[in-house]
Amino acid sequence: MQEMTSVVLARRPNGNPVPEDFSLQRQPLPSPGPGQALIKNHYISLDAGFRNWMDEGAGDAVLPAMAIGAPVMGLVMGEVLESRHPDYAAGDWLMARIAWQDYSLADDSHFIVKIDPAESYPMNYYLGVLGDTGLSAYFGMTDIGKPQAGETVLVSAAGGAVGSIAGQLAAIAGARVVGIAGGEDKCARLLSELGYDAAIDHRGDLQAQFSAACPDGVDVYFDNVGGPLLETVLEHINVGARIALCGAVATYGNPQPGPSNLFQLITREATMRGFFAHTQVARYPEARAQLAAWLEAGELRAPEYMLEGIASVGPAFCDLFAGRNFGKTIVKL
Amino acid sequence: MQEMTSVVLARRPNGNPVPEDFSLQRQPLPSPGPGQALIKNHYISLDAGFRNWMDEGAGDAVLPAMAIGAPVMGLVMGEVLESRHPDYAAGDWLMARIAWQDYSLADDSHFIVKIDPAESYPMNYYLGVLGDTGLSAYFGMTDIGKPQAGETVLVSAAGGAVGSIAGQLAAIAGARVVGIAGGEDKCARLLSELGYDAAIDHRGDLQAQFSAACPDGVDVYFDNVGGPLLETVLEHINVGARIALCGAVATYGNPQPGPSNLFQLITREATMRGFFAHTQVARYPEARAQLAAWLEAGELRAPEYMLEGIASVGPAFCDLFAGRNFGKTIVKL
Repeated sequence: MQEMTSVVLARRPNGNPVPEDFSLQRQPLPSPGPGQALIKNHYISLDAGFRNWMDEGAGDAVLPAMAIGAPVMGLVMGEVLESRHPDYAAGDWLMARIAWQDYSLADDSHFIVKIDPAESYPMNYYLGVLGDTGLSAYFGMTDIGKPQAGETVLVSAAGGAVGSIAGQLAAIAGARVVGIAGGEDKCARLLSELGYDAAIDHRGDLQAQFSAACPDGVDVYFDNVGGPLLETVLEHINVGARIALCGAVATYGNPQPGPSNLFQLITREATMRGFFAHTQVARYPEARAQLAAWLEAGELRAPEYMLEGIASVGPAFCDLFAGRNFGKTIVKL
Repeated sequence: MQEMTSVVLARRPNGNPVPEDFSLQRQPLPSPGPGQALIKNHYISLDAGFRNWMDEGAGDAVLPAMAIGAPVMGLVMGEVLESRHPDYAAGDWLMARIAWQDYSLADDSHFIVKIDPAESYPMNYYLGVLGDTGLSAYFGMTDIGKPQAGETVLVSAAGGAVGSIAGQLAAIAGARVVGIAGGEDKCARLLSELGYDAAIDHRGDLQAQFSAACPDGVDVYFDNVGGPLLETVLEHINVGARIALCGAVATYGNPQPGPSNLFQLITREATMRGFFAHTQVARYPEARAQLAAWLEAGELRAPEYMLEGIASVGPAFCDLFAGRNFGKTIVKL
């Protein structure tokens, strides 16, 4: 009998997740019911934000809290094997917000997006630069950041999946782009591979580096980190600054007080706005076409951190919190 | 020899200001130098935000920190006695961001706005409903809150100078309006005098009152308070919520951690924006005309808390922090 393997939540992570928080579970391969498609998954996207729903009672309007022993929710891409959903047929490639498994049953509750396999990029790009992370960078920078030539744009987790794209988009807009990342090596790669103008190593002296990297203050902050770093950045924002809140990896599983200086938003007449790419599905084609054009023109690079096999999924997720990735983290099944 | 009296900062307030933090000082009446106008002040506006610049080293892009022994900065209205400023002549009525004094020398550094005394309202309205506080309510509600019919609009310090107007503007827009204020008496006045639909007494059980007053969540939060209340409100915001940060009276002189749940801005795709009326001077005529039309139509009321005499200025400022005022606090000289 054919089997499927799920990555389940073995226990609730205590702060940053570790590989032992996850385990593998096998079960017989199910058949799709009415309105369902059975998908053979090829790529699993690792996104730190899902850490948020791993805590007891963490359910909200977006997702319920994940249950111990149940498959972990994430973002997955695969090929339809068998379908009883009217919109999808065998051979279709789908992306869905669904559990970390090698096979999945997906229905309309799973934010399914169909991918056209005729397009000329590796399919895994649709989880990264042309997927939710690239699109998050695009929507956050386009709709909220709106960088202008000569402005200073600051990006946290600048070498991460979203940050690595967000910074490049700001550079394309003509802004001076400053990235915050952990460690000298990553900071060097921001400059040499992604076109950042300056980098701040958050393991070093933040204040001194801020003064050097952002002598004219910060006009746009694209925040993937939250936490104490946001308070530091607020000290440096200019009048009319825009802060795009994309993620808050520093706070996932580590609840902590927010910035004590939100009053800066008043004195600087600044805007802070949170967003989700998921709710902009209608604009994916427009956004993807623009990102693809920049990729083709050689103006945009799509760094990836790729591991292999279902057993690597839990560890790859943990790598995000340890900052081991540069670019988009994906597990190929 | 004619004298002028100033209210000076006797010592730095420790937390909420008390009357002993201020004292009176007399000096000979000065003559205006080139570019200056000598103003006889008739009304002093008390605005909690100025508390912010009373701390050691509290200077920022808006104002320098106030000095011990120096006149306290505020918002003042008076009549020109003698002018060496090309735009102002004896008899003109001016409003300026200038010190708490019975006479002032004002120049272009003092955000002078000229008031047309032919208009048919008491001059003190130009410090309240037709002044910076009413205009703050107008710009914050119009530009950021954008209340729609049927939405729930929440206003903190709802009986304060700005909140008392902000809530009425939301009601005019057709929204359900909920005010947060301190004490049963103020809460009752919000409903009976200002058209609020419900009130929350922040001295009572917040969570229970929130559930009762905002059963459908919060679409717009007009915040004059900041602090822990903001964290509570963030738990109740709806998708697409707008938060207008107008002031943060809870944090002036009481620095404290910010909301630990800013991630709500992401999951609710919400916007938080700070603003200042001062920077919108070009729009004052438009905004004032609209507010005046509502006053004339009887749709807008302008409650005031008015004291008299220069010796009342310090105590009136302290009353704001003790919540003794309902409506705009003004001292008539």
